[in-house]
Amino acid sequence: MAGIEEAMKILRKPFDKYAKKDGDKKTLSKRAFSSLLKAELPELAGDNKQLNHMFKEFDEDGDGTISFSEYLQQISELMVLMGFFEDL
Amino acid sequence: MAGIEEAMKILRKPFDKYAKKDGDKKTLSKRAFSSLLKAELPELAGDNKQLNHMFKEFDEDGDGTISFSEYLQQISELMVLMGFFEDL
Repeated sequence: MAGIEEAMKILRKPFDKYAKKDGDKKTLSKRAFSSLLKAELPELAGDNKQLNHMFKEFDEDGDGTISFSEYLQQISELMVLMGFFEDL
Repeated sequence: MAGIEEAMKILRKPFDKYAKKDGDKKTLSKRAFSSLLKAELPELAGDNKQLNHMFKEFDEDGDGTISFSEYLQQISELMVLMGFFEDL
């Protein structure tokens, strides 16, 4: 399977894992979002204040949950901003 | 390595492979972009007219090339719009 499709499936896994934990199984609640970040990207998780801020940034349409599309867009942007790709 | 970081590295590979082919090694020219799509996501490549349109969409700042950040953002959005994740 092509790299890009494989990468997208890998990105989907943690989203689905944590989305299933509470509320609508297709979106991340704030609690699920925090758990995902702490487990998957601990260096980005920070304290509750930072998590709250990040949740608001991710939740582009302000509906109180994070959709997969919002997650995908924001995680990508976040990793570019955090210089994740600088040394690749 | 965590899934998300691994996925981002996988996403970076085709970008670097085609960016190196011509012009600035850190961005995709239109020709490199077309080659990448045809190889990685043939179902999205379409004809030249569609490729031209997609290139303009990806090239958010209109500088005539596609940066990694533009590529990451647009590929994600494109795959969501094309329903890639519907049956996952």
